[in-house]
Amino acid sequence: MMGGDFAPLEIIKGIEQYLQQGNAHLVLIGDEEKINAALSETSLPENSYTLVHASQVIDMHEHPTKALKEKTKSSIAVGFHLLASSKTDAFISAGNTGAMLVGSLYALKPIEGVLRPTISTIMPKENGKTGLLLDVGLNSDCKPEQLNQFAIMGSVYAQNILGIENPRVALINIGEEEGKGNLLAQATYPVLKENKHINFIGNVEGRDLFLDKADVMVCDGFTGNIILKLAESFFEITQRKEIHHEYLDRFNFEIYGGTPVLGVAKPVIIGHGISKGKAFKNMILLAEKMIEKNVMQKLQTELEN
Amino acid sequence: MMGGDFAPLEIIKGIEQYLQQGNAHLVLIGDEEKINAALSETSLPENSYTLVHASQVIDMHEHPTKALKEKTKSSIAVGFHLLASSKTDAFISAGNTGAMLVGSLYALKPIEGVLRPTISTIMPKENGKTGLLLDVGLNSDCKPEQLNQFAIMGSVYAQNILGIENPRVALINIGEEEGKGNLLAQATYPVLKENKHINFIGNVEGRDLFLDKADVMVCDGFTGNIILKLAESFFEITQRKEIHHEYLDRFNFEIYGGTPVLGVAKPVIIGHGISKGKAFKNMILLAEKMIEKNVMQKLQTELEN
Repeated sequence: MMGGDFAPLEIIKGIEQYLQQGNAHLVLIGDEEKINAALSETSLPENSYTLVHASQVIDMHEHPTKALKEKTKSSIAVGFHLLASSKTDAFISAGNTGAMLVGSLYALKPIEGVLRPTISTIMPKENGKTGLLLDVGLNSDCKPEQLNQFAIMGSVYAQNILGIENPRVALINIGEEEGKGNLLAQATYPVLKENKHINFIGNVEGRDLFLDKADVMVCDGFTGNIILKLAESFFEITQRKEIHHEYLDRFNFEIYGGTPVLGVAKPVIIGHGISKGKAFKNMILLAEKMIEKNVMQKLQTELEN
Repeated sequence: MMGGDFAPLEIIKGIEQYLQQGNAHLVLIGDEEKINAALSETSLPENSYTLVHASQVIDMHEHPTKALKEKTKSSIAVGFHLLASSKTDAFISAGNTGAMLVGSLYALKPIEGVLRPTISTIMPKENGKTGLLLDVGLNSDCKPEQLNQFAIMGSVYAQNILGIENPRVALINIGEEEGKGNLLAQATYPVLKENKHINFIGNVEGRDLFLDKADVMVCDGFTGNIILKLAESFFEITQRKEIHHEYLDRFNFEIYGGTPVLGVAKPVIIGHGISKGKAFKNMILLAEKMIEKNVMQKLQTELEN
């Protein structure tokens, strides 16, 4: 309840919006006094939530590992503790992104067989469809076998959460043919081609990312993070210049809510610091869907075989 | 005269536009018959050019190295021969990009001390200014010392061609502080920081590329190529969706003409396959400016010291 620029009020607004269509029981973690003050301004039904007090807050600018280690009573630390001990089924926060990632990696177990968990983003296609890009920054240097696992995890996510049948997987590269690209891309292509768990369609280039060539696009986290932030900034520039169009609106992160961490044992959703009500509502819906569809178990099954 | 989708007619139109403001003597290389047929439809003054016949053409889809080796009478091969033997002072083509790059690397000498030549692109800033991004695809895997040279070459180019005094140089990265990023970025930061020939201002992220944080932005050619093609495709999508704005118009490559190959002994400008008259005019103006400003000599001086 303490994460993001508009906490806790916008989070509560998001919960109110969520409760119009869902009925999960929500565990609200954070400073009791502040949360109660905000709750008094809204009309959240008391039986829809449990409040768990956390006396500390990890600030947006604190060093993730250090803060998480020292602030054991912070809302993020408490959140991971509840999730790891199965008191909750999913954990959502728009707080310190680094602390959320560190917590996901160290407070939770990775799914068996996962080399490195990954984070992804949604790509709005020109034709109205939606693609998935991963990794977008958790793993800046990668090995082919990691990209191969991102392809599997992305496929499971695309199928179960985005509802894409037999998702087309592509390797982000700087040429179309096998053999093109940097050393990583050259080494990854044959691994993806041999992978029977995915529907690999070959390379896609920078110009293809917003076209409907592939559903799941994999790259190292350095490349993916630059693509993600470039796309976000492009949306912001068009907003500031008042260039409006329904296609550009699809670059608004609020529609998508947050980014799930894939490859850890439980659903963790990381929100943008500037999330408002709608984003929080969508994050809760996403967490709910990940639990209902049993995405973590499906990931494990795909990675085992 | 044979390069690009609209050759030779649009090239001639570009020359006509150029001659309204410049007076360089132009050497037109290509199939004599086809060029003469096109010239007869236009009104190019005969004393403004010399026609050099080349009986072969390297097709857009041919393998660059193979084609350049076998088709010694192709317009691209002849062009590099004339440039290497100082019969011309610069070489421009919108033909097979790969062949233009291979020719630049092997038919010309690199400037002494240059580890790897590089290609760049213009970045239209939100505030109306212009930045330079390099490398955009010639060097997919890089070492810190190469990025360091790209920074120097980019600075000389920005100062002399873009008219930016004391250009701010940044490393493209996925975090702001030193120590962030992938192994390459981590190793490159201290090298750039120590470099007395450049005005290094630190890291820029994907979200900063169209903002006015830095004038020269360096990265490996894999990352740069994806940024370039993503930006080009974004412009094309907005065009197809009829989203119009003067800022978006600045993403139209025609304004900038072509991409110079930096680090080789003579100016080589590579044009887009879909270049029309205006792009060709701008490529000739760019070549002229590079000769007048003696950019290649200045690059050598900076790299030597």
